[in-house]
Amino acid sequence: MAQPMTLLRSHLSGSWQTGTGEGRPLHDAVTGEEVARVSADGLDLAGALEHGRRTGGPALRELTFHQRAALLKALGGHLREHREELYAVSKRTGATLGDSKFDVDGGIGVLLAYASKAKRELPNDTVHVEGAVEPLGKGGTFLGQHVLTSLRGVAVQVNAFNFPVWGPLEKLAPAFLAGVPTLIKPATPTAFLTAKLVELIVDSGLLPEGSVQFVAGSLGDCFEHLTGQDLVSFTGSAATAQTLRSHPALVRNAVRFTAEADSLNMAALGPDASPGTEEFDLFVKALTTEMTVKAGQKCTAIRRAFVPREHVDAVLEAASARLAKVVVGAPDAEGVRMGALASLDQREEVRRSVKALRDAGRIVFGDPETVDVVGADTDRGAFVSPLLLLGDPERAEPHEVEAFGPVATVLPYDTTDQLIGYATRGQGSLVGSVVSADPEFVRETVLGIAPFHGRVHVLNARDGKESTGHGSPLPQLVHGGPGRAGGGEEMGGVRGVFHHMQRTAVQADPDSLVAITGRWVSGAQRHESDVHPFRKHLEELRPGDCLVAGPRRVTQADVEHFAEFTGDTFYAHMDEAAAAANPLFGQRVAHGYLVVSLAAGLFVDPDPGPVLANFGVDGLRFLTPVRFDDELTVTLTCKQLTPRDSADYGEVRWDADVTRQDGESVARYDVLTLVAKKPAGKETQQ
Amino acid sequence: MAQPMTLLRSHLSGSWQTGTGEGRPLHDAVTGEEVARVSADGLDLAGALEHGRRTGGPALRELTFHQRAALLKALGGHLREHREELYAVSKRTGATLGDSKFDVDGGIGVLLAYASKAKRELPNDTVHVEGAVEPLGKGGTFLGQHVLTSLRGVAVQVNAFNFPVWGPLEKLAPAFLAGVPTLIKPATPTAFLTAKLVELIVDSGLLPEGSVQFVAGSLGDCFEHLTGQDLVSFTGSAATAQTLRSHPALVRNAVRFTAEADSLNMAALGPDASPGTEEFDLFVKALTTEMTVKAGQKCTAIRRAFVPREHVDAVLEAASARLAKVVVGAPDAEGVRMGALASLDQREEVRRSVKALRDAGRIVFGDPETVDVVGADTDRGAFVSPLLLLGDPERAEPHEVEAFGPVATVLPYDTTDQLIGYATRGQGSLVGSVVSADPEFVRETVLGIAPFHGRVHVLNARDGKESTGHGSPLPQLVHGGPGRAGGGEEMGGVRGVFHHMQRTAVQADPDSLVAITGRWVSGAQRHESDVHPFRKHLEELRPGDCLVAGPRRVTQADVEHFAEFTGDTFYAHMDEAAAAANPLFGQRVAHGYLVVSLAAGLFVDPDPGPVLANFGVDGLRFLTPVRFDDELTVTLTCKQLTPRDSADYGEVRWDADVTRQDGESVARYDVLTLVAKKPAGKETQQ
Repeated sequence: MAQPMTLLRSHLSGSWQTGTGEGRPLHDAVTGEEVARVSADGLDLAGALEHGRRTGGPALRELTFHQRAALLKALGGHLREHREELYAVSKRTGATLGDSKFDVDGGIGVLLAYASKAKRELPNDTVHVEGAVEPLGKGGTFLGQHVLTSLRGVAVQVNAFNFPVWGPLEKLAPAFLAGVPTLIKPATPTAFLTAKLVELIVDSGLLPEGSVQFVAGSLGDCFEHLTGQDLVSFTGSAATAQTLRSHPALVRNAVRFTAEADSLNMAALGPDASPGTEEFDLFVKALTTEMTVKAGQKCTAIRRAFVPREHVDAVLEAASARLAKVVVGAPDAEGVRMGALASLDQREEVRRSVKALRDAGRIVFGDPETVDVVGADTDRGAFVSPLLLLGDPERAEPHEVEAFGPVATVLPYDTTDQLIGYATRGQGSLVGSVVSADPEFVRETVLGIAPFHGRVHVLNARDGKESTGHGSPLPQLVHGGPGRAGGGEEMGGVRGVFHHMQRTAVQADPDSLVAITGRWVSGAQRHESDVHPFRKHLEELRPGDCLVAGPRRVTQADVEHFAEFTGDTFYAHMDEAAAAANPLFGQRVAHGYLVVSLAAGLFVDPDPGPVLANFGVDGLRFLTPVRFDDELTVTLTCKQLTPRDSADYGEVRWDADVTRQDGESVARYDVLTLVAKKPAGKETQQ
Repeated sequence: MAQPMTLLRSHLSGSWQTGTGEGRPLHDAVTGEEVARVSADGLDLAGALEHGRRTGGPALRELTFHQRAALLKALGGHLREHREELYAVSKRTGATLGDSKFDVDGGIGVLLAYASKAKRELPNDTVHVEGAVEPLGKGGTFLGQHVLTSLRGVAVQVNAFNFPVWGPLEKLAPAFLAGVPTLIKPATPTAFLTAKLVELIVDSGLLPEGSVQFVAGSLGDCFEHLTGQDLVSFTGSAATAQTLRSHPALVRNAVRFTAEADSLNMAALGPDASPGTEEFDLFVKALTTEMTVKAGQKCTAIRRAFVPREHVDAVLEAASARLAKVVVGAPDAEGVRMGALASLDQREEVRRSVKALRDAGRIVFGDPETVDVVGADTDRGAFVSPLLLLGDPERAEPHEVEAFGPVATVLPYDTTDQLIGYATRGQGSLVGSVVSADPEFVRETVLGIAPFHGRVHVLNARDGKESTGHGSPLPQLVHGGPGRAGGGEEMGGVRGVFHHMQRTAVQADPDSLVAITGRWVSGAQRHESDVHPFRKHLEELRPGDCLVAGPRRVTQADVEHFAEFTGDTFYAHMDEAAAAANPLFGQRVAHGYLVVSLAAGLFVDPDPGPVLANFGVDGLRFLTPVRFDDELTVTLTCKQLTPRDSADYGEVRWDADVTRQDGESVARYDVLTLVAKKPAGKETQQ
């Protein structure tokens, strides 16, 4: 570097700021050169929290889930355009280009996946209505409904050194979607890469002011200022997780805290997967890949490889052969497959842990003290050889000592029960793999280890090609594990979003509930008008707009004709004696499909208009049998509107209630339609 | 009491046990007499945890959710038969008969509500499959599915003194349903009533050994022995919650901890609710009721009553008039409406708190030092007068000091924004009431205070008759609140059950997923056989059993006939030009309801057989338009079986996939049927 070494900048309270003092030096993991320094001394973190609460939070809460999703998507696109800049910095963390893509492209993928999930699974609104309405009284005037609203605080996100891009983005996405501003705290050794990421985010100008802040350096007294509306998400060591979790301010204010800590993750080879099977090869490949990607510095890496005793020698041999081909060295040197650890300190830590593991077994491949290195200086770079051990599963060390580097231990087992017992001795893990094609073994093992795992990955010839691998958490699924793994569950699609929101049970009368949620519920006022609701454009419709149509008599001739026409001659419709013997009917009844077809015939407005299509039906229940000569009436009520920001139509959910002449409901369901927005300049038809 | 005072017994490791030493005396709240003593000295709590894990847990996990629900229901019935015995003991806690019913009948109601919810919302299985299958690859060979399995530990339940029956039952029900054994720790002052409850539970012989244990007295070193598979649920003071939450063993093992702490709950009168309105009367009644039920010893009681400034005098006057009619005294004395506090210590605590509140306002009704008492001795019983204050909402005390007795403070406000600001100064509450008939005020206030509340209760003339009241959490809804209220969410229907289970993201090929969950998923093997699946009884069906039927051509004549027959002459089916202009179709298409009607005609087996009815359809989506002369084929696959233990049939969910001649799916949905079990002695038809 030509310029004198400077402190990394923090982005707080709307501007780039620099701490005071000399700062702590950060080193290139490959060359040992100083890359930058960090100090947060003198920075006003309490002020930054307030900035998030007063500026970022309100700005985010102005946006709907869909609008926030659109910003995340745009941010993903922006970062993708600039990813080469991130790769260049990433190299200095010891990462190969493959490792960098895992981190950078993986992180961008998380933004895009979240954006897409939010558009599909969340409303175009600021409040999420969860689950069904709960009737709380017989008269229907008192209802319960869970709603989720944005917490009014800041999500303080403490990241690990091993994923300087993916980690912060994984935490940012659900908080942002939830309408909660973020304060990113990177891990110090690789903070220079996260700083580059935040620079790209800020320069994009895409996100509302105050929605993302960044502090390079220590959090100082930040935690003292947290309230019950703030959150802390931590990824890193189990020891640090404990310290943070018991911070007095967190405890006092019941601050939401999640930890995703490194754990003793396992993979088990099934007894069916003998040498020569595809599963055997998949197992060996997964094991060695997890050891070498990011030089094994992954919270999710396989540390314990359980192998049926009879296959142990074969696994050790095959894995050693693969590891022998792994070229270690400078990330950009020719042929290099595995880079450096993040720091020399980290290498010392790995060597210490391997010493403990060796006490309960022996090293089968590699030497913790020496390794051949290509294109770099072994003394200055944090290089270490892949290390495969054979261990004794009855000893404590293999289940308790984690070497956070390219290290794994093969452990023999004899029975499935024994395997499950060993697996649980990890006391809670992020992920376990079960490599087998035998459904019985898979079922027994997966359900046996599930209570101790946040994620379980089944690998065999059937899914081997598409599997995303043991080590990769996915934004669609929960991430985190119980016990030693930290007890966290911070990601996982909309669950991760909801974690940043308060779930409130609202008890109210139907009309108040409609006012609160913007959705019509049974028992609330309906509005009938002269205009058929199918003649209203999206902007003209209101929850509660309704149509009552009918009656239509259902005759025996109708039923027999429908049976003949469709081929549905089920005995309950056609056979007097058999229908009488049916415990639910007692006599012949009309087809349920006839009832809903006739109902559509009653409620449809035939002429061209804003309703483009009926694309589905939800929750159809046939509540009371329809007998011959019953007369059907349908009440169709607009229940929920979901405008699409990127289309000239939106979704409208209608409540359809088909009743008999005595008022009894015979069928109840939601009709889903696409309804056009008003063409520009067109006047309202109301 | 005639017999010499004895120690309360604990029920641990399968037997009644008694601690050593003299024990701590428990007093009758009314007479001051000693009722019993408690000591857990010398009891083996680590052994009790192991007993739960080794005996109770496995026994519970042998049962399905439905079987556990049936036991809870039976237990509820048993307790109802014996409730007079509980009332008799409850009296000694200072509770009136009304208070006792609230506690005892309320608790029994929770058991029954949970039992019924579990039967409706959980499978007749030991594993809960949550949410939709997530496709994780384009080829459909790698899928994600969240499953929940029982934690392998013990739920340690630390209860509050104010609900000695309802509290423990509220915690027991979800743990039991989840397959997790319980260790009940009652609050000491009223432990004698919980001991009576546990005696009834044990004597019933209904619950599996080890599934419910009970320790009267301190928990000693119990927490030291907790692992990441155990849970702690606490109800009580915010201070104790903090101590427990930061216990080193809990922190170290990321033990799931929930707290439900007393909080400064609010109720707000809307500006519309002037004197003379029904809402005004409901507000005053709610306020005084919450003050006097259980002598105000409810975590959920109203402490802060926000009133529009112009209505303050009227509220104070009306509330004082009601409070003047409250007769205080021995629970069984004639005319008594409010009993004693649980102990003399508690009364001192209330007096101290009222002193602090008085610094920020003035007492409008009552005197903390004196009260007229009926049928009891004022010096020996823990009696206190209802105390209504008028406070200054700009001061800290009304928002921070909780007097855990018959005490509330009226606080004036001028605008809705101001009201919301005041409300949030409670820093997290269990419940807030909004008393208003004005939808705009209700919407703004409810959404403004929701992030700070676990429950919000809207009260007005429309729901006043059916409302279950401000103070009552319901088993259907979440209970707990953020921040000061403890951050807990321990109840709430199946959410409370899931809290005791581990959520695991399973990634697998479809066939492995079927083996693990027992449910068929798209992409897994299907089994076609010569026997129509509608001819199989419940026990003979297997997930994956399938039928392929068709093709059936859909002609223009069919569509026009269906339109005429049903009346559904929507333009997309009938009007060539209008259909061509439709952005989704481009030409005339068949009715979706025609497609599903024809599909039923293809898959139905007409003869009488085990299929009793098609009671509904879920998630119907029309995926591709059906054009004239398209040929439809339907594949019907058995997806999920839910046998009913109490009926001679069960529910069978089928996947229906209607495809066109080119294999494209045109409609996809679940068909729900009731299928009979095999009559006794009948041979299989397979």
